[in-house]
This record gives sequence, C-alpha cells and structure tokens, in this order.
Amino acid sequence: MPDDAPLPHPATRRSFIRRGAAAAVALPVVVSTLGACGETRAASKAPPEGKPAVPPPPPSQRQKADQMDAMHEKGIKAFPAKTEGQGNQVMQPRVENGVKVYDLTAEEIQWEVEVGRKVKAWTYNRQVPGPQIRVREGDRVRVNLTNRLPESTAIHFHGLELPNDQDGVPFITQPPVKPGESYTYEFTVPNAGSHMYHSHHNAAIQVGLGLLGAFVVEPKHQVRAHKADVDYVMVLNDGYHGYTLNGKGFPATEPVVCTMGQVVRIRFMNEGMMIHPMHLHGMHMTVIAKDGWDQPMPWKCDTLNIAPGERWDVLVKANNPGTWAFHCHILPHAESEHGMFGMVTALVVKPATA
Amino acid sequence: MPDDAPLPHPATRRSFIRRGAAAAVALPVVVSTLGACGETRAASKAPPEGKPAVPPPPPSQRQKADQMDAMHEKGIKAFPAKTEGQGNQVMQPRVENGVKVYDLTAEEIQWEVEVGRKVKAWTYNRQVPGPQIRVREGDRVRVNLTNRLPESTAIHFHGLELPNDQDGVPFITQPPVKPGESYTYEFTVPNAGSHMYHSHHNAAIQVGLGLLGAFVVEPKHQVRAHKADVDYVMVLNDGYHGYTLNGKGFPATEPVVCTMGQVVRIRFMNEGMMIHPMHLHGMHMTVIAKDGWDQPMPWKCDTLNIAPGERWDVLVKANNPGTWAFHCHILPHAESEHGMFGMVTALVVKPATA
Amino acid sequence: MPDDAPLPHPATRRSFIRRGAAAAVALPVVVSTLGACGETRAASKAPPEGKPAVPPPPPSQRQKADQMDAMHEKGIKAFPAKTEGQGNQVMQPRVENGVKVYDLTAEEIQWEVEVGRKVKAWTYNRQVPGPQIRVREGDRVRVNLTNRLPESTAIHFHGLELPNDQDGVPFITQPPVKPGESYTYEFTVPNAGSHMYHSHHNAAIQVGLGLLGAFVVEPKHQVRAHKADVDYVMVLNDGYHGYTLNGKGFPATEPVVCTMGQVVRIRFMNEGMMIHPMHLHGMHMTVIAKDGWDQPMPWKCDTLNIAPGERWDVLVKANNPGTWAFHCHILPHAESEHGMFGMVTALVVKPATA
Repeated sequence: MPDDAPLPHPATRRSFIRRGAAAAVALPVVVSTLGACGETRAASKAPPEGKPAVPPPPPSQRQKADQMDAMHEKGIKAFPAKTEGQGNQVMQPRVENGVKVYDLTAEEIQWEVEVGRKVKAWTYNRQVPGPQIRVREGDRVRVNLTNRLPESTAIHFHGLELPNDQDGVPFITQPPVKPGESYTYEFTVPNAGSHMYHSHHNAAIQVGLGLLGAFVVEPKHQVRAHKADVDYVMVLNDGYHGYTLNGKGFPATEPVVCTMGQVVRIRFMNEGMMIHPMHLHGMHMTVIAKDGWDQPMPWKCDTLNIAPGERWDVLVKANNPGTWAFHCHILPHAESEHGMFGMVTALVVKPATA
Repeated sequence: MPDDAPLPHPATRRSFIRRGAAAAVALPVVVSTLGACGETRAASKAPPEGKPAVPPPPPSQRQKADQMDAMHEKGIKAFPAKTEGQGNQVMQPRVENGVKVYDLTAEEIQWEVEVGRKVKAWTYNRQVPGPQIRVREGDRVRVNLTNRLPESTAIHFHGLELPNDQDGVPFITQPPVKPGESYTYEFTVPNAGSHMYHSHHNAAIQVGLGLLGAFVVEPKHQVRAHKADVDYVMVLNDGYHGYTLNGKGFPATEPVVCTMGQVVRIRFMNEGMMIHPMHLHGMHMTVIAKDGWDQPMPWKCDTLNIAPGERWDVLVKANNPGTWAFHCHILPHAESEHGMFGMVTALVVKPATA
Repeated sequence: MPDDAPLPHPATRRSFIRRGAAAAVALPVVVSTLGACGETRAASKAPPEGKPAVPPPPPSQRQKADQMDAMHEKGIKAFPAKTEGQGNQVMQPRVENGVKVYDLTAEEIQWEVEVGRKVKAWTYNRQVPGPQIRVREGDRVRVNLTNRLPESTAIHFHGLELPNDQDGVPFITQPPVKPGESYTYEFTVPNAGSHMYHSHHNAAIQVGLGLLGAFVVEPKHQVRAHKADVDYVMVLNDGYHGYTLNGKGFPATEPVVCTMGQVVRIRFMNEGMMIHPMHLHGMHMTVIAKDGWDQPMPWKCDTLNIAPGERWDVLVKANNPGTWAFHCHILPHAESEHGMFGMVTALVVKPATA
C-alpha cells in the first residue's frame, strides 16, 4: 500500500455522530467543533491569491498516522473536559410537615454536550439528566412540576409501584399539564431500587430532548452485601444530543473515581432508544439488581447489555490500580477516526494512601 | 420562546413509522390514516377561489398544545379500537384416532392493523398471528399445511425438539411446499413451554408478512408455583405491518384484563427483527421461563428485553388496581407527536367484587 | 392473485446486505456474486442483434417459485463452500524460557468472505478472526505486535484483568504503535474464560475491518460439569464484511460437527455492532458462563441474545441426530429471497458408530 493511500473508510467524526442520531431518530444534531479540523487543513491548502495552485506533496503515511493520533491524544488529554452545566446532581428537598418536597421546572435551555457543542434541551431544573432524587423506602414525597415548555407534559415515575393516579400517563391516569401550568404528585415511596422519572407525554421527543432523571430509593434496611464506598448513577442516552453518559459526550464525561480496595456501585439507567453494552476494562462487574430488584444470585461480567428503560446495578471491587476505559462496546458509539467520543468515560482507581 | 414557535422536531407519526420500518427492512409500510390530519389542516388553509391568500394568525402556544393533546386523547379514548380480524385465537383441533389435527392454510389477505389501515398479510388461516396452538407434552399432533401463496413455504416449529425430518427447513429437512401443494407434519410433542411456529423459507419476508403463530405446550405436570388465573400470549412484531402486539397497533391492541389478586402469566414472543424491552407500569413482573425452560430461580423486573426469536414467561401478581400502560420502552415504537401508537397496550386490574 | 404477480417485496440479497451494513456503519460493502443472477437473467432476455425485442411470456407462478427455490437449494447444497483463507485457527506459540510467545502481524489483505466475494480486511496474521490464542490460567504470555497497517494500532485484551500498562488503550495505557513499528505485551494470564483481543485504536473501523480474535483461557482446575467433547469458538460480526460467523458468510461458514451423545461447548463472541440472537434448532443450549465467568446456576434456552463485546458459553448435549440449522434470528441477517446467507451455519449430529 503506497504511503499516500487514503484511509480505508473516510468516515469522519461528524458523520459518525450524524449517523448515530439518524439511526435513532433521524433528526439533526449540532456538530462538535472537534470535527472542524478537516476544514482547517483544507483552508490552509488554498493557494495564495493570484498564484496558480501547486499541489503540495502528499503527506507520508507516517504523517497521516501522526495527524490521526494527535486528534485521539487531544481528546484523551482533554478528559474530563469542562463544560457548562452538570446534570444528575443530587437534589436536596424542602421538608414540609415531614414531606420531602421537590420542585421541578420543565424548561428549554441550551445544553453544552461537549466543549463548544450546544444543543437545544428540554430539562428539569436546567439539568440533563434532571436532578437526582434520592429518598428512602417509606418516605413521603411531593413533586411539584411546573411546565414552562411550549407543549403539555407529565411525569412518570418509572419503576415505582405507585397508586394509579400518580402514574403520570396523560388521559389514562391524569390530564396533561399544559404550558404554563403546574401539577403536584404526592406519594409514599413504595419500593426500593434504582428507578427513573421522565415525561410520559410525547415522550419519544420529550425524553429524547432531556426530560429525564434518576430516582434512587434506598431500602429501609440496607443489605450488608450491597454496601458500597462509592455510589454512582450512570444514565445512558442516544437521542437528539448524541451518545451521552449523564448528559455529556466524551471527553466532557465525568470519570468514576475511587481508591484501591473500595467497592463502587454503579447504577446503569438507559433513557435512550438503543441497547448499550457497557464494557469495563481491568475489573469485572458483579450484577446485583435489575430494575431495582435484587437478582436471586449475583453474577459477574465485564460487558453488560442495557436496554432502553432498564436499570442494572453492579458492584466493582476496585482491586486493580490505574485509569481504565469504560465505554459502550458498540464501537461507533464510542470511537471514530477523530478519537474517542460519546459513551466513553473512565474508572480511576487511585492507590490507597498508607 | 414565542407563542408560535414551531415544535422542536416536527417528526410526524408517519415519519416515525416509516423510519421504524426502514431500520428494520426499508420497505414501504402502508400509512395510518391518523397521519392525514396534517394535510387536512393544510388544505383548510387554501384561499377561497379567486381571492388572494391571507395568512391566518398563528395559533397560540396553548392552541397548539391543545391540538396535540386532543390527538393523544383521541387515541387513548379509542382504546381498544375495533378492527376487522383477530389473530392468535386458540384453535380447536380435530381429533383423529387420538391425534390432534390442525389444518393450516397459508394465504394472502388484507389485514387491518389499525382502524382503517389495511396491509397485505401472508397468514395462517387468515389470522395474524396465526391461530394459537395449545397442546400438552406427549400429545400426538398433526399439522396439515396447505400453501395458497404465490411462492413455496414450510413450517418450522421454533423451540420444539422434534425429529430432524419434522424441523421444517427446506432443502435441509424437507422439500419446499410449492404453491398449491400441501404437506403434513406429525410428531409427539416433546418439550413443554412457550414456543412458536413460522415459515422457514424466504423467512425474512414470509415471517415479516405474517406467517407466524404461538405454539404453547402445557407441561404434563403443572408446576404449582406457575399457576395463573390468566394466561396471555403476547407476540411482538416490527416488520412490514409496523410495530404490533398480536398483529395490531395501538389503539387497536387488546388489553390484558384481570381482577385484583389474580396472577397473570404473560408469554412474550418476539417474531420481529428488533429487540423490544417491554415495560409494565404499576407492578413488577417475575420472570419464570426462557424459551420454554424454567429459569433456575425466578427474578423480578419491570422492563424485560425480548430479542428476536426469544420467548420469556413472566407472572404478574395483580395487586395494584387501575389501568396500567404496558409498552415497548423504545419510545419511538410506542409514541409520536400524534399520540401513542404501535407497541402499546394496558394491563387492566379490576377491583375484586366482594 | 394472478400467476405473474410480482413477489411481494422485491428485496434482493444485495439490498439486504447493503441495508445491514448501512444500519451498522453506512459504508460500502463489496457485493456477493450470488446477487448477480438477476443481471444474468436480464442479459439473457436481450434480443439477438438486429432483431426487435419480443417480450417472452411471463413466467408462471410455479416457474417463479421454482426459480426462487433453486437459488435457495443452490446455497444450501454448496454448504460448506470452500473459500480461500480460514480464520480463528488455534495458534501454536513459541516457548522462550517458559514464556508462550505469540507473534502477531497486523496487515491488510483481501479476504474471501463468500465464494468469489473478496473484501479488504485488516488482519492479524492474515486471518479473520485472527489466530485463536488458547492458554491456561497462570501462563506467562508474550504478544509481539508488528504493525504493517497504514495507521497506528494497539491490542486490547478484552476480558483479561491485566495490569494497567498491558491494557492496550493508546494515550491512556501506552503510546499508539505507529505504522512499521512493533510493540510487546507480556503478562501472566490472570482469569480463565472466553475472552477476545482486538484493536483499541480507531477501533470502530479497525475492528470492523478484522483486527480481532479469540483469547481463550483454560482454567487451572477444570470444572467437571463443563467438560465438553467439542469446544467451538463462534465469533459473530456484522461490519464491513457483512454478516459473518468466524469471518465467513453462509454457505462458506463452517459447520459444527459432533457425534450422538457428545457434549459441545460453544463460545459465542460478538465483535460486531449489533445484537445477534443465535438460535439452535432441535436441541437446547445450557448457558454456563458470561464473559468468562460462570453463571451462578446454568440455565437453558434455544435462542441466546449476544450483544457487542459479550461472550456467552453454552453446552449442547447432542442427543438429536441430523443436520440442524443454527443462525441469527434477526431474519434479515440470515435469509433473503435468494436463500440463506450471512449468519447461518449448522450443527451436525452424526450417528454414533457402534
């Protein structure tokens, strides 16, 4: 193969992103600025004004490999890249007469998915995912929803076994909450586990735009075997915002950080439209629960297939120090010729300080 | 955002349906009449003859939300909508010398998937899914297949551990059954469980068009823990007919109905080309069997991912009264801006009458 | 329906293949020569030179069915079709001072996926999948990678819990291995099971083109219940080369052959971008391990959904004699109007010779 042979498949990062979104919902996705380096190079090849174009010598194979590697390195070195806004932040409720009160406002914002890539998002409290709600089995909870969106909405508490009138499905269990209106849900938390809340009205679009969040219920009596030093919620998505973990694409994703010997609990939640088999390097995951229900016996894997609407809880015993890639193993959700992107993060196992 | 701002992503129901079908097999799908309301509105904006067009004032945000909500409400209020033809009906066999005889005729019909949406279907006995065959382990069964289709066919009994010459794979275990010809299968039913029968010739097309059905085998000795008051087969599909449950798209799907305190057994069977994570609201499902084989220990979930060719049996203890949404959690298989459609039904838990 | 009615959906084999690849990565796929029979027929209808075209009489329905069936038969009768090159061959290491040394060269070749269909492949040692590495827990292993590709690469040992600096992720655990350069991995094999090795640099493209292989680790102490007479690795793929099992599409796939009464262990490994629910006819599979880790209790199925990056080990007790279809149950991955193709093979259970 000659030095100047073209790369075998000139798929660019942006075409990967577009394609991914197209497979999901065929709607336009704002493109990462990272993808712009091709144009920059093209521009630099333009001949000076008034002179005929002299084609530059083709770059050598090594030069091209170096260029590609530099893009890959740049992404990884930028990790974790700072972006505006952080989703999935644990929300402190107001407590009124023993009731934990959560005020959620649904509204449209611009959300920075990656550095410089802003997308239209429909959010709860200006976060994607929405604020993380963490309560305990048996708690009394009130959720005040205010709708500042241009269309009606409603909240379904996915996984909670609520009375029918709190289930959040317009025209089946409640009227839709119109633009400008408010609606209150109130219930006693019935079952523990890793659950979610999201719109159940025009949901393919509303959830795709960001109206989703984690609803974690601690059990009344903690199972000793499930005790963890780090408890991490990882919401997977693949809609209008591209491939994301907790609302951000690599390198703007957040690493999971722990210390040698610690136990990390990861609560995977899929709010997207595709499966995502999440693969952890260097250590296995012990699966302990599905949709908030304990598995009858824990089992081990390194790649866990998570389907839309599913939640899986795993424990990782952090016994292998280093920075470990942690990503969806549908490779076009995680890497392109321009480097890793989308559903990629890292598990960082720091040495224990003596 | 101004009142007249367009909806964020003007995906129509028909584009969702087309897209879904395209992802599956990229073949045309007859379009729901519901999708026509866009054109109706457009038509009403045409100026009266001979007069210049005067643009009407833009509808307010609230008007648009009301319009969308009205479409959503209309679909839900129509549920369960009456359509012509009902698939998956338990078939009574003739009994000849102790053999249960099922006569199946493969033929083309027009099948009403939703109200007013008729599609070409290749069927067994004019049903999609074909008639439900329910027998007992050890029964002697004869299936007489008559082929009135324009191409050859054959029946594979998916999940049954039959002698090789009854396996239904043309050129491997039998000759194809030519148009106009008949063929007889006969066997002693070897293994219990939730199985299927379908074409195994040109199957991507023939099964996609409807040549499929449930083949349920009751065990010789019923397991006490699996006793159910309601036994419901739910065949999932996503081919040429769009997203369907038992051959119909919401709101023409059939609710699962039971009474407080009852146990409902649901036998999920995927005859399509995509995964479908089925999500039940309000109650969990206890998974007891996979492909007709008991799971070593039952386990619980509220969202069960069912892949093509798989069968999963679950029990639901109906302890939460009300009408509960029950749908595929790949949201574009279940909802659009025009309301819920496709793979949506409801579990109705009626109050126990004292 | 008249005799000369067109087939309901004139999807050709090549359109199925293209569509499959498009869903995955939207890159061109070299097309099977089998798809050419349409053109051949068209050509034969051209009028002799100088004479006006006389349209031939339309073929009867039966003739068309016979033509389709002949294509189906031809594919099946050709199985297993001979093609150049065989992947997944167990590699004998050099042993140096007690270290098992594997020399792997990454290079581009033309790979014959089906008879006459050659595709560009990036390979380890000119095989797709690369040579099968089979070692024992606790072995000392050295892998010398030489890069003869036009871009940088690296090897990740997927599933092995290695020290961080052997994990094979450029810019996180090592520098990329540039074109023309070599790199050495060396480690003590930490955990048993069905693992894989593949590129982790520009991986959506490099793995898609063939830089992948099985890495099987025998346990130090064999579990009696897992003893098998036949141990078969089946690598699933769906990238640039179309739908393949061990690098070949049906009928060039390899049958799994055993004798009545034997136990067959199949190690499914998915190196593609889509799920593949593998369905075995005639007998069930007992699932014993996931990603190299024993399941807490074995469980049975006949259709096993395998997601990208996953490995599942199953045992089949060969107690049903005959040739049994064994295929992905996403039907467009396995059959078209031109017959079976892609992810199809057979389990052949030969009678025991007395």
